[in-house]
Amino acid sequence: MSNIPWQDRPEGSNDVVWRYSENPIIDRYAIPSSNSIFNSAVAPFEGGFAGVFRCDNKAVQMNIFAGFSKDGINWDINHDPIVMQAGNTDMIESDYKYDPRVVFIEDRYWITWCNGYHGPTIGIAYTFDFKEFHQCENAFLPFNRNGVLFPEKIDGKYAMLSRPSDNGHTPFGDIYVSYSPDMKYWGEHRCVMKATPFEDSAWQCTKIGAGAVPILTEDGWLMIYHGVINTCNGFRYAMGSAILDKDDPSNVLYRTQPYLLGPAEPYELAGDVPNVVFPCAALHDFEKDRIAIYYGAADTVVAMAFAKLSELIQYTKDNSL
Amino acid sequence: MSNIPWQDRPEGSNDVVWRYSENPIIDRYAIPSSNSIFNSAVAPFEGGFAGVFRCDNKAVQMNIFAGFSKDGINWDINHDPIVMQAGNTDMIESDYKYDPRVVFIEDRYWITWCNGYHGPTIGIAYTFDFKEFHQCENAFLPFNRNGVLFPEKIDGKYAMLSRPSDNGHTPFGDIYVSYSPDMKYWGEHRCVMKATPFEDSAWQCTKIGAGAVPILTEDGWLMIYHGVINTCNGFRYAMGSAILDKDDPSNVLYRTQPYLLGPAEPYELAGDVPNVVFPCAALHDFEKDRIAIYYGAADTVVAMAFAKLSELIQYTKDNSL
Amino acid sequence: MSNIPWQDRPEGSNDVVWRYSENPIIDRYAIPSSNSIFNSAVAPFEGGFAGVFRCDNKAVQMNIFAGFSKDGINWDINHDPIVMQAGNTDMIESDYKYDPRVVFIEDRYWITWCNGYHGPTIGIAYTFDFKEFHQCENAFLPFNRNGVLFPEKIDGKYAMLSRPSDNGHTPFGDIYVSYSPDMKYWGEHRCVMKATPFEDSAWQCTKIGAGAVPILTEDGWLMIYHGVINTCNGFRYAMGSAILDKDDPSNVLYRTQPYLLGPAEPYELAGDVPNVVFPCAALHDFEKDRIAIYYGAADTVVAMAFAKLSELIQYTKDNSL
Amino acid sequence: MSNIPWQDRPEGSNDVVWRYSENPIIDRYAIPSSNSIFNSAVAPFEGGFAGVFRCDNKAVQMNIFAGFSKDGINWDINHDPIVMQAGNTDMIESDYKYDPRVVFIEDRYWITWCNGYHGPTIGIAYTFDFKEFHQCENAFLPFNRNGVLFPEKIDGKYAMLSRPSDNGHTPFGDIYVSYSPDMKYWGEHRCVMKATPFEDSAWQCTKIGAGAVPILTEDGWLMIYHGVINTCNGFRYAMGSAILDKDDPSNVLYRTQPYLLGPAEPYELAGDVPNVVFPCAALHDFEKDRIAIYYGAADTVVAMAFAKLSELIQYTKDNSL
Amino acid sequence: MSNIPWQDRPEGSNDVVWRYSENPIIDRYAIPSSNSIFNSAVAPFEGGFAGVFRCDNKAVQMNIFAGFSKDGINWDINHDPIVMQAGNTDMIESDYKYDPRVVFIEDRYWITWCNGYHGPTIGIAYTFDFKEFHQCENAFLPFNRNGVLFPEKIDGKYAMLSRPSDNGHTPFGDIYVSYSPDMKYWGEHRCVMKATPFEDSAWQCTKIGAGAVPILTEDGWLMIYHGVINTCNGFRYAMGSAILDKDDPSNVLYRTQPYLLGPAEPYELAGDVPNVVFPCAALHDFEKDRIAIYYGAADTVVAMAFAKLSELIQYTKDNSL
Amino acid sequence: MSNIPWQDRPEGSNDVVWRYSENPIIDRYAIPSSNSIFNSAVAPFEGGFAGVFRCDNKAVQMNIFAGFSKDGINWDINHDPIVMQAGNTDMIESDYKYDPRVVFIEDRYWITWCNGYHGPTIGIAYTFDFKEFHQCENAFLPFNRNGVLFPEKIDGKYAMLSRPSDNGHTPFGDIYVSYSPDMKYWGEHRCVMKATPFEDSAWQCTKIGAGAVPILTEDGWLMIYHGVINTCNGFRYAMGSAILDKDDPSNVLYRTQPYLLGPAEPYELAGDVPNVVFPCAALHDFEKDRIAIYYGAADTVVAMAFAKLSELIQYTKDNSL
Repeated sequence: MSNIPWQDRPEGSNDVVWRYSENPIIDRYAIPSSNSIFNSAVAPFEGGFAGVFRCDNKAVQMNIFAGFSKDGINWDINHDPIVMQAGNTDMIESDYKYDPRVVFIEDRYWITWCNGYHGPTIGIAYTFDFKEFHQCENAFLPFNRNGVLFPEKIDGKYAMLSRPSDNGHTPFGDIYVSYSPDMKYWGEHRCVMKATPFEDSAWQCTKIGAGAVPILTEDGWLMIYHGVINTCNGFRYAMGSAILDKDDPSNVLYRTQPYLLGPAEPYELAGDVPNVVFPCAALHDFEKDRIAIYYGAADTVVAMAFAKLSELIQYTKDNSL
Repeated sequence: MSNIPWQDRPEGSNDVVWRYSENPIIDRYAIPSSNSIFNSAVAPFEGGFAGVFRCDNKAVQMNIFAGFSKDGINWDINHDPIVMQAGNTDMIESDYKYDPRVVFIEDRYWITWCNGYHGPTIGIAYTFDFKEFHQCENAFLPFNRNGVLFPEKIDGKYAMLSRPSDNGHTPFGDIYVSYSPDMKYWGEHRCVMKATPFEDSAWQCTKIGAGAVPILTEDGWLMIYHGVINTCNGFRYAMGSAILDKDDPSNVLYRTQPYLLGPAEPYELAGDVPNVVFPCAALHDFEKDRIAIYYGAADTVVAMAFAKLSELIQYTKDNSL
Repeated sequence: MSNIPWQDRPEGSNDVVWRYSENPIIDRYAIPSSNSIFNSAVAPFEGGFAGVFRCDNKAVQMNIFAGFSKDGINWDINHDPIVMQAGNTDMIESDYKYDPRVVFIEDRYWITWCNGYHGPTIGIAYTFDFKEFHQCENAFLPFNRNGVLFPEKIDGKYAMLSRPSDNGHTPFGDIYVSYSPDMKYWGEHRCVMKATPFEDSAWQCTKIGAGAVPILTEDGWLMIYHGVINTCNGFRYAMGSAILDKDDPSNVLYRTQPYLLGPAEPYELAGDVPNVVFPCAALHDFEKDRIAIYYGAADTVVAMAFAKLSELIQYTKDNSL
Repeated sequence: MSNIPWQDRPEGSNDVVWRYSENPIIDRYAIPSSNSIFNSAVAPFEGGFAGVFRCDNKAVQMNIFAGFSKDGINWDINHDPIVMQAGNTDMIESDYKYDPRVVFIEDRYWITWCNGYHGPTIGIAYTFDFKEFHQCENAFLPFNRNGVLFPEKIDGKYAMLSRPSDNGHTPFGDIYVSYSPDMKYWGEHRCVMKATPFEDSAWQCTKIGAGAVPILTEDGWLMIYHGVINTCNGFRYAMGSAILDKDDPSNVLYRTQPYLLGPAEPYELAGDVPNVVFPCAALHDFEKDRIAIYYGAADTVVAMAFAKLSELIQYTKDNSL
Repeated sequence: MSNIPWQDRPEGSNDVVWRYSENPIIDRYAIPSSNSIFNSAVAPFEGGFAGVFRCDNKAVQMNIFAGFSKDGINWDINHDPIVMQAGNTDMIESDYKYDPRVVFIEDRYWITWCNGYHGPTIGIAYTFDFKEFHQCENAFLPFNRNGVLFPEKIDGKYAMLSRPSDNGHTPFGDIYVSYSPDMKYWGEHRCVMKATPFEDSAWQCTKIGAGAVPILTEDGWLMIYHGVINTCNGFRYAMGSAILDKDDPSNVLYRTQPYLLGPAEPYELAGDVPNVVFPCAALHDFEKDRIAIYYGAADTVVAMAFAKLSELIQYTKDNSL
Repeated sequence: MSNIPWQDRPEGSNDVVWRYSENPIIDRYAIPSSNSIFNSAVAPFEGGFAGVFRCDNKAVQMNIFAGFSKDGINWDINHDPIVMQAGNTDMIESDYKYDPRVVFIEDRYWITWCNGYHGPTIGIAYTFDFKEFHQCENAFLPFNRNGVLFPEKIDGKYAMLSRPSDNGHTPFGDIYVSYSPDMKYWGEHRCVMKATPFEDSAWQCTKIGAGAVPILTEDGWLMIYHGVINTCNGFRYAMGSAILDKDDPSNVLYRTQPYLLGPAEPYELAGDVPNVVFPCAALHDFEKDRIAIYYGAADTVVAMAFAKLSELIQYTKDNSL
């Protein structure tokens, strides 16, 4: 993949991850019905990029929309939400859809998202073309959020990260991995990593959740995730990274004690939910040693950040908990 | 009424309600003692306009102040709060006063506000000249907020919208209508409309409250109101509209599923209470097809927005829950 | 009234209020459908007694039932709940009915209760014969409980005590008085008495509510009420008394610092809601200097207690806050 | 099955479910280490009965113990907890075990329980002899409780009821059904029934959970479950029944609006957790038309209740929500 | 000390600590004003015993009263609370007094209790005769409870156990030791032992607090304490024991994983606060190898339990966390 | 002290306290590891200034760092946190350190801060040179914050203000004074001032805490403090002043009803914790009648404000509660 979005590190900066200077790349009102567009995911598609976007409308109903881009920065987002067809089962309820992730596995693109079925759980769908989408069984019982598939099978089975939750503004949350032989039945649930003790790394002491689809590197699976601290004025979301064992991702090899990127710019500090940096996707190019991260800012807009892949991996190893 | 404040819709905007370009119109420090001026109400008066303003002082004590304006935009607010005389009863306690509304009925101006009497309830006063004010019986037992009178009697009785509450940062709240033969005894309490299910219209799923004095149109009473969603970082207030049956306002004919205006500008996103758009008054001119809405922003300043009356009514009917 | 239930004070007891030795007088399963019968009210009727009883059925739905007794102790309670006809208004919703009080004023019996209308508020009905009941307007907006009418008009108006609440297990609550010219519109709301500071009288430091219909004595209105303390294992309800000014019942002349009766017997300590003594009615006989108090125990059964009227009044005066 | 425990309905009782006169059948101190023995399950075994018992020790650590009985009433419970061997996977963590259920499917007994794996989830094990137990994969991600297997496969798959929860004293909870081809991977999660609106059936308005293993009858699956109401003095647990469609148990055919049995006896009203009736098992005999229900009382002891099967089914149909 | 109360272990019992068969020894109404008498402390005095008793009056005001006994079981409690004189400072406020402990050090008896000074903290007084009491400086800033002095100086300084708290029904709490050269200034605060992880010993997983004055044994300080678990129906208090290093009591040598005595008798299971066993004092006789423990039951009455000292110590060592 | 930082009051301003025009003076990323630098303290030192700074690193671990400045505005902060040596005791635990204060007493500089010892309490250290620091005993048991020493002994004893707290986002808090003969043992705890009733001064109605080291003036001790109001969107911190009796600082002579400075500038309204103005230090020059106040803004940066000393004192006296 050689045409992913890119911008060099700013002069004088030593940051391992830096923001795109033209952030945010997608405004809250980018389509006519939207109140906000954020926490969205993209993937390479037909020489360019396709994506699935969380667009809350002005009734603040949450749904996911397909979009397309030549350069990964300028996006055309459909004005109507994705309409699902039945996948590996009869159609099931979906009161709302939000926080999508996208990953290509074997022959098709898989979408996971937070699906409203008597509370939040993990919805699954596949598409070949970002036009027709086939909705499958929910992966888990409620209550769950932040379901993220690995981009290839592990030991012959699909593997998914998720974050068991409750039915409100969950004040706890750890990352688990589960396996499935068929994208329908899931089991072998293992705890991957937990929120940290306050003293060890406070930015991720309340809850954590997987962000972008993990990237297989020589060191293991590079997972970009979010962590949350509960301040006296609400939850603050920041971004970190971890490296998981290639064969057993419940084995955490490294995990950043410092955050990589926290809310500091105006579009991260103010919006519908202040102080949120929430990564949902990343494009990478091993050859050019680049990674481009997409994140929702303040639950309002989509922003980007960049890093050198090798530096990010080295930083994760050097600053591990 | 032909001289209400007005500014045309900005080029390129399709919004049914748009902001005044010089917002906020009243700064938090507009009078010497004030910490913030917001959630205030105005009415036509002697060829110009008079208003009652919520000015919290720097001890963050809440009180209401009279003010006057030629154009409805530039205001002279008295430096001392309104001093009440006894109205239809002996003087009663008033630990604090906030969120006033103003309406002319028959021969005088009536003021309602949130009155501190062993907790918040609805205070009532009348004035002929915005100099002398006569305080009447509280309409209801505590705990109540957002009491708004109809501008004319219904079936021979005064009618008031209100929002029963509790004694704190109330996490629930629906709009009721009550009637009185005499502005002293109130009864015939009927539920008008309730907070919506999260899935149907999330911006108004936690609580709602009447805003401006209802406007009688051919379609019924046009009521501008506020709705609240409880995010993980606090309450977010936005503005919607509804049309109530002319003869029985507990019969809701239409109610906007989308919000009309939500917090998005810096003065709405940051302030003493971030993410608040709180309408308390509206001036209208049927002939010119105009409405000018006054709203508090971030519990800190007063701002204005405009709409074409006919468009606003049509939008309410076309986008109803 | 010369035939009210009575039992002399037990040997050796100095208590101003003492329990009936055969308590409880009404068992939880006294009618076929009931899960519990408690918090109920009685009045003299046709030489004997009639009452309105809270019987929760085995679906734990709350409703009120008429009952009759020759001696005030042995009761025949109807097996079907009261069916209301329209009183001074069209019929209004009533999701549930509980905690009734009964009082004779002028020419008829008035029933008040906690009525489910978008949350708890005060329902009102009248009957001449305890067979036909006519439901009137709710007295107040939600949320309210413990509405108790005075047995005669005060200054030409009906007068009602009530306790504004919220929509859950209200952790606060004070007693107010309101007036009505017509049992339809209510106003002139005045605070009567509040929960006490913890240090002054802890048994009534969380919330209080009127119990029996006040009794007019030479010293003023004798009001038996309940008070609540929030322990680390839940709410504990006990019984106290106060004397209110005859002409202005918002003027509290005396109020017991100690409770009169607190949960101590097995049927008060255990049941659906442990540790509840909740008075709802009292019969009195000035000539014989007797008062018989009916109270709900543990939200499960009905019990009785007795006192000498003169002693109770003297005790209230001697042990006042 | 012709020798299940039995006691005729008491004289004069009309109850559809009645208590065993010698309750409780197992005392809290029945084994040397125990603080309490409750919420336990039994099954026919080798002409008599075997069971798995929740015995909390005096450190209030929760574990499950095997026990044996000739008559189903007098039990010998092992003094040491069950030691698990690996079943269909490597051994997994189990911080605690509680609230077991037991069911015979095809060739072996399956045990499910609430298993401590980073919070409560559903543990699974099988045994042929109640001596050797083989622990399998947890059915679900945390947080879950009240996992109950159907006694035969449905459409070729194992089926399990469960109640998604959070990690504390969960204040919500509905019953779901999930399927597995192999007792390892689970999916096709469907909502079966939810807590009821307060007005409809308050005893089950806070949360519900499956109790005994469902019994296949001509009318469908007879499921005995518990429901909870949150009073101002804590949770109160009672017992109800439902009939689920034979082929699709997410289709609820009938469900009792009244409870069948609620806390009323001293051993139900007082104990480590007052006001708990919690069914976990039932033995039935179609020929004699009998069912014997085992339930935990007050989180302290084991008690029994009986019913005529046909009456219980008819009652469920006649008193359905 | 050879005449402490005693009763042999019941036939057939293996309990290390057993209850007095005539419990409770002091009834809730033992003095005229009392609502409850519990959580009280005693000491040998003039050949018999003296004590300081928590008697809440019928206004549920908390105060401490002196009492005297010949046998330690039958007590004469003064009808009036202790009146303090100034000790090592001017008199300080005391809104309420509860949960006293008593200890003889060097030449006088020291009383500690929970003293209401802008919230709960530790009050200190001394007496020579249980008639005149001299109140000293509060040991600590609010909020604190369960202050217990060691019966002799450690390294030349007074030493006190305490449990920092908050201003409500504290849901956390660990035991600390602090030192003072003069009973006026306190410092060198060290954590002694904390509430346990739920999995390790759930009965003491919410909070713990020192109970009786520690007894110096050959193994170290024997400390009887209470532990609390938060069930879905409230706090449950039980009794445990620990052995602390003689020279550095912040060094915990042994601590019981099982409780010694938990609420199981009617007077412990029901009362003003159900499910409370709360030890505040212990008399011991090394020669006869006896210990007599006084504990409050259900926040309502005073009860006793007995143990063989050597057995209790051995049990603590054998069943240590 | 004649070279403290200074900037004249802006033209047209009447504010008694005004902000430095180049605020913030220290950016969040001023040292390589920092996420935020705020709530810090300074003192005159060797002709310039030294300070102790709270720098949270990017793992959001809280620690304190020494820094130096010639002009009090431009600061060189060490890149490594202060390493403590043992002071008047063995080294004790310190899980974290935050919100330092600095004061010179007699012969050395004393540092106090919020020290993590089983929760927050007050840590104490001294230094002669801001290079070597000696950590002493914690002043108090947990939980405590905002410990501030007086700059000279009172009645021969060290005196410290503090604010007892709980272990979370404390929703209450009053200021106390305590005394010590030796900086090791503390006692004579007296309440100084409490949070105000909402109606009297709402900005300080939730909790208050001492800010800068008190300044001895002719009128008494001038104490700059913070007050907090709990809005529906979180805590809002503002700055006030009080004057305490010279000889008995628990005697409050004056206390500002209005705040002196509240969050209004972008760097105060947005950041890691929006709406925080938190003073921790002040430099004064009696001769030039100047005071320079250092405060943390939005828990993210350090800012300054100025006042004329005489005006500030007069304002405090003229606007007292």
